[in-house]
Amino acid sequence: MSQLTAPGSPTGPVPVHGPVPGPRNAITDVPGLRVGHARLPGALALSGTTVVLAPPGGAVAAVDVRGSGPGTRETDALTPGNVVERVDAVVLTGGSAYGLAAADGVAAWLEEAGRGHRVGPDPAQVVPVVPTAALFDLGRGGDFRARPDAATGRAAVAAAAASPEGAPVEQGAVGAGTGAMTAGMRGGVGTASAVLPGGVTVAALVAVNALGSTVDPATGLPYGVGDGLRYADGTPEFPLRVPGPEAAERARRRLRELAAEREALSPLNTTLGVVATDARLDRAHTRKLAAVAHDGMARAVRPCHSLADGDTVFALATGTAGPPPARPGLLPEHAAADAVNALLAAVADVFARAVAHAVLHAEPATTPWGHLPSYRELHPEAFA
Amino acid sequence: MSQLTAPGSPTGPVPVHGPVPGPRNAITDVPGLRVGHARLPGALALSGTTVVLAPPGGAVAAVDVRGSGPGTRETDALTPGNVVERVDAVVLTGGSAYGLAAADGVAAWLEEAGRGHRVGPDPAQVVPVVPTAALFDLGRGGDFRARPDAATGRAAVAAAAASPEGAPVEQGAVGAGTGAMTAGMRGGVGTASAVLPGGVTVAALVAVNALGSTVDPATGLPYGVGDGLRYADGTPEFPLRVPGPEAAERARRRLRELAAEREALSPLNTTLGVVATDARLDRAHTRKLAAVAHDGMARAVRPCHSLADGDTVFALATGTAGPPPARPGLLPEHAAADAVNALLAAVADVFARAVAHAVLHAEPATTPWGHLPSYRELHPEAFA
Repeated sequence: MSQLTAPGSPTGPVPVHGPVPGPRNAITDVPGLRVGHARLPGALALSGTTVVLAPPGGAVAAVDVRGSGPGTRETDALTPGNVVERVDAVVLTGGSAYGLAAADGVAAWLEEAGRGHRVGPDPAQVVPVVPTAALFDLGRGGDFRARPDAATGRAAVAAAAASPEGAPVEQGAVGAGTGAMTAGMRGGVGTASAVLPGGVTVAALVAVNALGSTVDPATGLPYGVGDGLRYADGTPEFPLRVPGPEAAERARRRLRELAAEREALSPLNTTLGVVATDARLDRAHTRKLAAVAHDGMARAVRPCHSLADGDTVFALATGTAGPPPARPGLLPEHAAADAVNALLAAVADVFARAVAHAVLHAEPATTPWGHLPSYRELHPEAFA
Repeated sequence: MSQLTAPGSPTGPVPVHGPVPGPRNAITDVPGLRVGHARLPGALALSGTTVVLAPPGGAVAAVDVRGSGPGTRETDALTPGNVVERVDAVVLTGGSAYGLAAADGVAAWLEEAGRGHRVGPDPAQVVPVVPTAALFDLGRGGDFRARPDAATGRAAVAAAAASPEGAPVEQGAVGAGTGAMTAGMRGGVGTASAVLPGGVTVAALVAVNALGSTVDPATGLPYGVGDGLRYADGTPEFPLRVPGPEAAERARRRLRELAAEREALSPLNTTLGVVATDARLDRAHTRKLAAVAHDGMARAVRPCHSLADGDTVFALATGTAGPPPARPGLLPEHAAADAVNALLAAVADVFARAVAHAVLHAEPATTPWGHLPSYRELHPEAFA
């Protein structure tokens, strides 16, 4: 389904052999990136934190905030032109604005590791810039006051650091996605990657807690499945059956029943994401990567970017793969932009796929607040 | 397909009866808005200008520029907080940056009509603010120097003013869409509207000249068809057959052949749009309407927002319908945002539908530059 055509170019529309998922189909397919999840302890807690840890030296970082109810920290530092260009870690967290405290623990861990923006003659004198975004999950475990804090953040970054390079990433109701919901269904964390024909990797990790629905009422499948790839051996990334509109309508009725049984919560929601590439990008193009990732969100979550969503996407460019490879036959003044455009097209697709993985991996839960049904529970036909 | 659910609200996911297209399924369904097209004369010219004219007194206006190759005029004036809140006309034009001259003719016409921002004691002392965005179509008629100018802009605004209120809008390769292409296929102007359950109208007019494709390779149908509505009598907005992937692949091969026969042009492209509502919105929410319209673009044009696209969406809120109607049963502090969210969800859908109408209405053309095939020519199966 993915298209990387460049019509209007001297060679006309050029079909490329499609991208394939990376070895883990995860953001850890970008060499050097590690992921750690931590869950808030406590019987009435349903929240947590996820850290994406860059390799030592950090990665070029950017952010694009498109929702109207964001809860963020250290995002202004990422504006191209501002002083900090590289960051060591990005944090996604539950706990709404309170949960931003998780970054305290990540900053402390990074300081102890001597990682951050150098501010003095002693290499230990650093200020780690830890861009963070929060999603609203307050009360879903039963205790409105159970929120990620510095200890949760520290646990998540420590878990990331302890994981081997290229490790698989746990998905579903983990980390920042522990208490996440989308349109009455359980949300969570998802990830995906794509290796482009030139060898560059583009990947995403998302935490889906959206006002909008991730499921197409016409098919009963997650919207993001439509951007699914095939592995090199030809097997599809999403081997699902189409439940059909009647099954989708049954699921929606069930969601309405469950919502009526639960304690009302204010309609605050958010899809968070980190997209990443091993291509070498400047800060402006890294920001563009975050911006166009929102196009994948627009396809996979409907509606999104509302006044009640805090939709925020961070981007990391590690640079180890060099500049994105240019196609032959283009005017020199267009080749570089064309190469970046291939990454941009890919990042929208990979973001949508990560959203699909998030809801496909979620497990149901029942808390004092109510029952949180999962996609698997609501759409068993998809797995028949 | 359209969803206006509000999960997480006190009443849970609330299905609403879907919106229906307005009487003309056009931006002129927003009372007071008029549309005029003008085509650049000359055998080797293939370009033109489209004006959306507000009623006297203007409309609250905003813009969101998401492409990286924009050609615009008077967009900074629309930043919320800046002095001008209402505008009398918005201009979409061919001719790339040169074509911004079309606004000169619109400004002159508005001055003669005594319309614009008052700057002196004499009501005739006005400065009309005419936000304008251009798309790249240079050379497609054979003459690289044939571009819309002040006369083209004047002709377009005069045509708008001469049209009756609520008139149908000509679609396809007209006005700003005269020379438009998308992924090697002829693009053009499209429009659509939706009347929401509360009675508010949301509408879009687009000029599609995108780098990306508007056609789903899995079905051969325009992506935007997936957001299609049903008229009140149950007939579908897009009564099309699915060509299927083989037909879509045949069409892509034909596009590659045609591209190889044509003179190469630099890969500069753009989808432009004007979205509008009769709801009363402040400038910040009007800007949000423009922003979320880009989500419809993301669904209907893949990829979009690239470095080679100048994707720009203006928004107009006329206010005649009053504030967007709030649903009962919500906390007072959420009701107003929820009402705006319904407009935002609708504007993404209506934008995608307008893109589909643009390509469905385009007719083929042959110029000294080459053959510009249309969707109808490439996908006859869809109309069988």
